[in-house]
Amino acid sequence: MAGETVITVIGNLVDDPELRYTPSGAAVAKFRIASTPRTFDKESNAWKDGEALFLTCSVWRQYAENVAESLSRGTRVIVQGRLKQRSYETREGEKRTVYELDVEEVGPALRFSTAKLNKSGAGSGGGGGRSFGGGGNTGGGSAPDDPWASAAPAGASAGGGGFDEDPPF
Amino acid sequence: MAGETVITVIGNLVDDPELRYTPSGAAVAKFRIASTPRTFDKESNAWKDGEALFLTCSVWRQYAENVAESLSRGTRVIVQGRLKQRSYETREGEKRTVYELDVEEVGPALRFSTAKLNKSGAGSGGGGGRSFGGGGNTGGGSAPDDPWASAAPAGASAGGGGFDEDPPF
Amino acid sequence: MAGETVITVIGNLVDDPELRYTPSGAAVAKFRIASTPRTFDKESNAWKDGEALFLTCSVWRQYAENVAESLSRGTRVIVQGRLKQRSYETREGEKRTVYELDVEEVGPALRFSTAKLNKSGAGSGGGGGRSFGGGGNTGGGSAPDDPWASAAPAGASAGGGGFDEDPPF
Amino acid sequence: MAGETVITVIGNLVDDPELRYTPSGAAVAKFRIASTPRTFDKESNAWKDGEALFLTCSVWRQYAENVAESLSRGTRVIVQGRLKQRSYETREGEKRTVYELDVEEVGPALRFSTAKLNKSGAGSGGGGGRSFGGGGNTGGGSAPDDPWASAAPAGASAGGGGFDEDPPF
Repeated sequence: MAGETVITVIGNLVDDPELRYTPSGAAVAKFRIASTPRTFDKESNAWKDGEALFLTCSVWRQYAENVAESLSRGTRVIVQGRLKQRSYETREGEKRTVYELDVEEVGPALRFSTAKLNKSGAGSGGGGGRSFGGGGNTGGGSAPDDPWASAAPAGASAGGGGFDEDPPF
Repeated sequence: MAGETVITVIGNLVDDPELRYTPSGAAVAKFRIASTPRTFDKESNAWKDGEALFLTCSVWRQYAENVAESLSRGTRVIVQGRLKQRSYETREGEKRTVYELDVEEVGPALRFSTAKLNKSGAGSGGGGGRSFGGGGNTGGGSAPDDPWASAAPAGASAGGGGFDEDPPF
Repeated sequence: MAGETVITVIGNLVDDPELRYTPSGAAVAKFRIASTPRTFDKESNAWKDGEALFLTCSVWRQYAENVAESLSRGTRVIVQGRLKQRSYETREGEKRTVYELDVEEVGPALRFSTAKLNKSGAGSGGGGGRSFGGGGNTGGGSAPDDPWASAAPAGASAGGGGFDEDPPF
Repeated sequence: MAGETVITVIGNLVDDPELRYTPSGAAVAKFRIASTPRTFDKESNAWKDGEALFLTCSVWRQYAENVAESLSRGTRVIVQGRLKQRSYETREGEKRTVYELDVEEVGPALRFSTAKLNKSGAGSGGGGGRSFGGGGNTGGGSAPDDPWASAAPAGASAGGGGFDEDPPF
C-alpha cells in the first residue's frame, strides 16, 4: 500500500468497544471516539471545550480482542490509523458517505490513568523485552501479510486472515 | 505555540523509564524508544527488521508518574509529541545536537498486550466516563497553562508548574 | 487551541479552487481534494488505484488568494490542516455530518511538476530569504492572532480578522 | 515497508538544494530545512520565534530535479517523509548519529507566495487533470517499485533504480 492517509487521533471512547467475529472466525472490534479540542477563553481565564470530532474505528484479530478486553466507555486513547471513506445507499436510495479509521495501533493514553499490562494470546510465552521490532505472538488468526506476526507458529493463519472479509457489523 | 513539529512514533522502550523530581517537586520521566520498520524480503518470504530509529522522550508531572508506574523495558508504545533539537557542548568543547520528543500523549499499544486501567492522582474520584474533553485530575503540580487540567482544585499548581524548570537529568 | 486533530493529506484537486469574500472583505478559498492510495497487484505486477478519500478544505485571507491564483483542477497538493466535523440539517430535517479540513499550510507537490514562485501581497518587498520563522507579509486582512503575520504593518488588520465570520459559501 | 515513522515538517530552506547524480545516473537532491515554532509573548503582545529544528532531507530521481529547479534558499516548504537515523564514525573513531528525512512529498507552502506550475519530465504530455491517483510521468530513472510511476514507458527504469545506491554526497 502506498499513498494512504495515516492520521493520529487523541480522543475518548463514546461507548464500550463492540466485538464480533466473521463467519471464518476472525475477530473485529469497532469503537467510536470523540476528540475534543480546547480553546483558551480570555474572559473566564479558563480552557473551554470546542466542538468534538467523532470517528468510528475498527481493529482486527488478536488486536481486536485486546481492545475489547482493555478499553471501555470514557477511556482516553491514542489511535493511529488510515482515514477511509465509505459510501453506501440508504433504503430510500440516497447516497451517504461516512469516514472511518482502519486502526494500525491503539492504546490508552496515560494522562489520567495508570495501566497494568499483560501479554496477550495463547503463545504469549515468547516475545521477550528485547524484541523491539515487534515479536510477541498475535495468537490465532494472524494474516500472512501482517508484518508484526513474524513469530507466529506455522499454520497460525488457518481459518483466519480476515482482511478480505466483510466486517460482521 | 504555533508551528511546532508534532509527530507520532510507534516503538518499544529500550529501558525502564527514569523518574526524577525538579527542586520544586515537579515530576519528570524520561524514556528512550526504538522504532523499527519492517521490510518484506521476497527471497525468504518473510518480514525483516530494518534499522531502528531511537528517540529520547520526556513527560511531566502526573503524566510522568503514570508513565513510570505503567511502562517498562520492552513495552510497545504510541507516543505523540513535539520534535525538538537541543544543542550542547562536550567537555572537549565540541558542539553536539540531539533530537528529543516533548511528549503530549503516550500509552501502551495493545497489539501484543491487554491493559488494566486505574484512574491516577489524588483526586481521582472525579472525572467520570462521559467527560470526553479530558477532565479528571492531574493531581499536584498542574501548570496553569495546561488545557487538560480544568478540574484541578484551587491551589493545585502551588510549588509546581514545572515547564520552565530545567529537567533534573 | 489544544487537542486539535492535525492531519496531512496528499491529493489532487477535484476542481478549481473557489474564492469568495466575507462581507467584511476577508478572502476565503475552498477546494476539494481526492487522495487515492495504491495497492500492488501481484497478478498484473502493477500498482492499482484504491478507493479515493475526498475532503473539502478551506483557507483564509492572503493564503486564500495565493491558493486561488496557483492551484487548479488536477494539481497534486500537500495539505496540512485541522480535521473538523460540521453538522447541519437538510431541508427535510435530516441531520447530516461532513468532515472538512481547516488548512494550516498547503502547496503543490513537486512530484510531477516544477514551480516558479513569486512573493505575494502588497508589502511583498520585505521578508528576505533568511527569515526562516516566517516573516514576509500577509497583506491586508491579517488577523491579530496570526503567528505568521508579525511583519504586518500597523493597522493591517482593520476590516479583516475573518476567523469568526461565517464563510460565504 | 511497514512501521516507518512518517512525519510532516513545515520549514524554510537554509540553502539552495544540492543536486547530484549517482554513477548510474539517478538524480538525488539534498536540502536542509529550519522549522521555527512561535510562542506568544504576553509582555510584548507579539509572537516570537522559538528554537529552530533543523533537518536534512533527500529526494530522488525526477522529483529531485523538480526540487532543484523550483526551490531555493528561504523558500517555505511542506515536507512529508520518513524520519531516519544514520550512524557513522568520525575520523577520530567517534560514533555520531544524524537524523534525516527521506522525502515522500515536498512542495512550496503558499502562505507568502504564489506558484506557477509546469509539468515536468520528458513524457509530460500524458497525465491529464483528471488522473487523481498520480499518473503523469516521472521521466527517466523511475524505480520498478515506485507506486506513482505507473504510466512510465517500458524500459524507463533501465539504468535507474537509484534507491539501493549510496547517495553521492
